[in-house]
Amino acid sequence: MNGAESLLQTLADGGVEVCFANPGTTEMPFVTAFDRTKGLRAILGLFEGVCTGAADGYARMAGKPAATLLHLGPGMANGLANLHNARRARSSVINLIGDHPTWHLEADAPLTSDIVSLASPVSDWVRTNESAATLAADGAAALEASLVPPGQVATLIVPHDSQLEAADRPAPPPARPTAPPVEEAAVATAAGALRSDGEAVLLIGGPALGERGLMAAARTAEAVGCRLIHETFAARIERGAGLPLVERLPYFPEQVLATLEGVSNIVLAGALSPVSFFGYPGLPSRLVPEGAVVSVLAEPRDDVEGALEALAEAVGAKSRPERLAVNAAGGSPSGPLDIENLGQVVATLQPEGAIVVDEAATSSLGHAVYSPTSRPHTTMTLTGGAIGQGMPCAVGAAIACPERRVIALQADGSGMYTLQALWTMARESLDVTVVLCANRSYRVLQFELARAGVAEPGPNAATLTDLTEPALDWVALAKGQGVPAVRVDTAETLAEELGRALAEPGPALIEALV
Amino acid sequence: MNGAESLLQTLADGGVEVCFANPGTTEMPFVTAFDRTKGLRAILGLFEGVCTGAADGYARMAGKPAATLLHLGPGMANGLANLHNARRARSSVINLIGDHPTWHLEADAPLTSDIVSLASPVSDWVRTNESAATLAADGAAALEASLVPPGQVATLIVPHDSQLEAADRPAPPPARPTAPPVEEAAVATAAGALRSDGEAVLLIGGPALGERGLMAAARTAEAVGCRLIHETFAARIERGAGLPLVERLPYFPEQVLATLEGVSNIVLAGALSPVSFFGYPGLPSRLVPEGAVVSVLAEPRDDVEGALEALAEAVGAKSRPERLAVNAAGGSPSGPLDIENLGQVVATLQPEGAIVVDEAATSSLGHAVYSPTSRPHTTMTLTGGAIGQGMPCAVGAAIACPERRVIALQADGSGMYTLQALWTMARESLDVTVVLCANRSYRVLQFELARAGVAEPGPNAATLTDLTEPALDWVALAKGQGVPAVRVDTAETLAEELGRALAEPGPALIEALV
Repeated sequence: MNGAESLLQTLADGGVEVCFANPGTTEMPFVTAFDRTKGLRAILGLFEGVCTGAADGYARMAGKPAATLLHLGPGMANGLANLHNARRARSSVINLIGDHPTWHLEADAPLTSDIVSLASPVSDWVRTNESAATLAADGAAALEASLVPPGQVATLIVPHDSQLEAADRPAPPPARPTAPPVEEAAVATAAGALRSDGEAVLLIGGPALGERGLMAAARTAEAVGCRLIHETFAARIERGAGLPLVERLPYFPEQVLATLEGVSNIVLAGALSPVSFFGYPGLPSRLVPEGAVVSVLAEPRDDVEGALEALAEAVGAKSRPERLAVNAAGGSPSGPLDIENLGQVVATLQPEGAIVVDEAATSSLGHAVYSPTSRPHTTMTLTGGAIGQGMPCAVGAAIACPERRVIALQADGSGMYTLQALWTMARESLDVTVVLCANRSYRVLQFELARAGVAEPGPNAATLTDLTEPALDWVALAKGQGVPAVRVDTAETLAEELGRALAEPGPALIEALV
Repeated sequence: MNGAESLLQTLADGGVEVCFANPGTTEMPFVTAFDRTKGLRAILGLFEGVCTGAADGYARMAGKPAATLLHLGPGMANGLANLHNARRARSSVINLIGDHPTWHLEADAPLTSDIVSLASPVSDWVRTNESAATLAADGAAALEASLVPPGQVATLIVPHDSQLEAADRPAPPPARPTAPPVEEAAVATAAGALRSDGEAVLLIGGPALGERGLMAAARTAEAVGCRLIHETFAARIERGAGLPLVERLPYFPEQVLATLEGVSNIVLAGALSPVSFFGYPGLPSRLVPEGAVVSVLAEPRDDVEGALEALAEAVGAKSRPERLAVNAAGGSPSGPLDIENLGQVVATLQPEGAIVVDEAATSSLGHAVYSPTSRPHTTMTLTGGAIGQGMPCAVGAAIACPERRVIALQADGSGMYTLQALWTMARESLDVTVVLCANRSYRVLQFELARAGVAEPGPNAATLTDLTEPALDWVALAKGQGVPAVRVDTAETLAEELGRALAEPGPALIEALV
C-alpha cells in the first residue's frame, strides 16, 4: 500500500466514515486511495467552504470526526471560515491538506504557500507529515487530537510524495480520550454559589446542551430555585417537548446586561463567561454584572454532564425535573409572511427528531420563540460568527443522520456565501429542506448602522447593506443546482409548501419572502 | 474626522478610486466614511473572494491599486485564495481588514482570530494599526507598499476603535516608487547570451507583456534570431493584430522540456526561471535543459521594459519588429461545439480592445490557438492556480475599463467557486460577457488521473471528478443573480448569441456545452 492508503485506512479503522473533499492534482493519490479503503467514502463539495462546514455539521451530529480533503494552501484557505466555526463549536474535524512533493517546494511553483500559517488560527493541532513511512502514525495522531473532548480541529499537511510512496500498514486507531472529571471541590463550590443569597444563574453550554446535561441542569435549577440559561450560540442543543425549558442568553450586550442585572452568582457548566459578540463603545466586553461571583463547575473540555449530575446530587435534586416543555405548537397563521409567523409555521410543522440548522440571523427570531415548545428536535447555530455555515452544516447533519429530517433555516445574505452546498444536497439526495428567509438585505448591518447613530445612510452605506438591486432569485439558484424550489410570501403557502417538502424524500428549497 | 475617514481620504488622495467590499459590524465606521470621502466608491461583493479577485483584475487593468474591505479574520479568509493569485500576479491591492476594538480582543469573542497569521502568506506587507492618530499614516504606508513595482499586496488590519476615534487629517499620498533600472552589465550579458552559438530563448513575463515590452523583445528576437517565449500564466498580456507573435511556454513539464530541448541560452526578462506547475515523480522541478545557461536581464520588479529597450539597442535591432500578427480571425465554424470551434468563434467575434479573462482551463485551448491572430486585445490568466479567479477578475477589469468589453472565458468547475461575481456584474451593469464552458467535469483532474496511470477510476475517484449528477444549470444560476443567460451547443448558436451579447450593454452569460 502507499502512504495515502495507509492514512485513509487508519482513519477508517478509527471510525472515520466520511471525507468531504475537493481535491486537486496534489491529492490524486488520496483520490485513488478511497477506492482501496474499507469504510470511508468521499463526498464532493463544489467549494471547500461546503466541505469544511459539512464536516462540522457531521461531527456535531455524529459525535465523531469527519475528514476533509483540500487542495494545498488556497484550497484550505477557502475552507477556513467554516473551520473557524468548527473550532468554536469544538467539533471533531480532521483536515487532510495536500501539498507539493517535498522535493518540489524549493521551486516555489505558483500554488506554493505557507499552509501552516493559514491553518494555525483555525486548528487545535497542526502537523506537516515528513514521509510515507510515518503517514499512518500521523493520521492516528490527527485522529487522536480531533477526539480530545468534546472535539478539536486537527490539520495534517501531506506532501504528494508521502501519499504516493510505499507504506507498511495502517496504524492502530488511538484510544478515544475521555473528558476529565471535575473535582469534588468544584461541585461543592457550585452548589454553594447556587444556594447562597441573591439571584443565581446556572449558565450552560457545549456538552451540557444534550438531553443528559439539560436534565441534570434542570434538576439542579428546580432544587435550588436558580435561573437556567444557555449560551447564545449553541453548537448543538436538544429542544422541544419533554425537555427542560432553558432561557437563551441574548445577543446584544445591553440585552445580556439587562438579563443578568441583579444576579449575584453565576455558575458555568460547559459555557464560557459571557462576553459581548462585538465591542461597542461605552459597553463592556465582559458581561458579568459588577459584584457577581463567577464559579466554574466545568470547562467545556471537562466531563460537563458528569459534573452536572454530581451537582444535582449535591443539591439534593429530585431524580427528574418537574417542569418540562410540552408541545404547544400548532395554529395556522395566515397573511403576509413575517419573521414571527414564519417561525410559528416551521416550529409547528417540524417533525419529531428534526435537526434545525439555524443561520437565519434576524429572521429566526420567531422560530426561537415557538420552537422550544414544539416537537423534540435538535438545533445547531453559528458558533464562530463566520457566515456561510448553515447549508454546509445541514449537508453534514443529513449525512450523519440519514433517518432524520434536516431543516436549514437560512438567511439570504449568509446563504450566498456557500450556496454551492445545494448541489451536494442534490447529488447525495439528502433530506434537507432549506427555508431560505429572503429579506433582501444584510439586515443585521442595517441594525448596526442604526445602533451607530446613522439615521439615513448615504449611497455607499446603503449599497453595502441592500440586496435588492438586483434581487436574488433563490428558486433559480436552487434549481440550477438540481434542488427543487418554490417561492412563498404568505404564512399559508409556506405551511403548504413546507408540509409538502417534509413529506417527500430529497432536498427542497422554499424561498420565503419576509 | 474619524480614523476611518482619514484613512479612506488618504487612499483616495493617492489615487485609489474603488473599494471592493463586504463589510460587517467591525467595519461600520468605514461603511459610513465612504459617504464622507471624495473620490472613492464602494462596490459590494456577496462573497469576499469576489472582492479580492475583482481588486486583482482592477489592478491588472488600471495599473493602480484597488482596495478591499473585509470583515475580520473569517472575512479575510474567504478572500485569501484570490489574494494568493493577486500576489502571484504582482497586482497592487490594499486590503483593509476590520478587527474588534483593541480593548475587546482579550475577551476572545467568537469572531476573534489571528489575522496576521492568515494574511501573511498572501501579503507582501502586513501591519496592524495601533491608533486612530496613526491610521492615515498607516494607510499611506500600505498604499506605498502596494505600489512597489510592478505591484504588491498590502494588508492593513484596523481595529474598530481606530476607525471610530478622532483623527487629524489625511496623510500626504506617498510618491510612487519606480522600478530600478538594470545595470548595463546585465544588458551586455543578455546580449552576449542571445548572440552566442546554439539556440537561445528570450523568456519574457510580467511587465514585459505590455505593448512596449513586447515590441522591444520582438525587435531583439528578430535581430539576433532567437526564439521569443512568454511565461505560461500571464497576469496580463497584449495580443492580436499589430503585436508580435510570441510562443507560450506550455503547462505540463514534459511539454516544457520538449519545447526547450537543445536550447543553450535562456535570457529572462520579467519572467522567472521555468518550473513545473506541479511536481511529478520522475520529472524535474526546474525545467531548464541540462547545460543551458540562464541569464537574468531583468527581475519582475526591475524596469523590465527599459531593460528590453536597452537590450534591443545593444543588439542593434531595428526600430520596429518586422513580423507582427495580422488579424486572421474569421470563418464560421458549424456543428457541435467543441473546444476548438468555441475558441475560433470567440477569437473571431471578440471586438478590438476586448479584455479576455481566461479561466477556462482545458476549454481555452482552442482560443489560445486562434486569438493571437485576432483583433488586438488583452488577456489575463490564472497566475496562482487558485481557481475561482475568472469572473471576479472580470468584474474588476470592467470597473477599471468601462469603455472596453470584457469576455470571461470561464470553466464550470472553477466558475462555481465564486459564482457570486455574477451578481456584482448585474448590480454594476458591467459589460461582461461570460462564455461559460461547461464540460461538466473537473476535466483537468481526469487528465491527472490518467497521467497517474488510473485507467478506470473507482466510484470514489469518479465521484470526485464528475459534475454530471446533477448537471449544473448555468442559465438558472445566472438569471438567479440578475444576469441574462442562454445555453448553446453548436458553433453557430454560440456565434449568434455571442454576437448579440457583445452588441448589448450590461452582462450576459452564455452556457456553452463542450
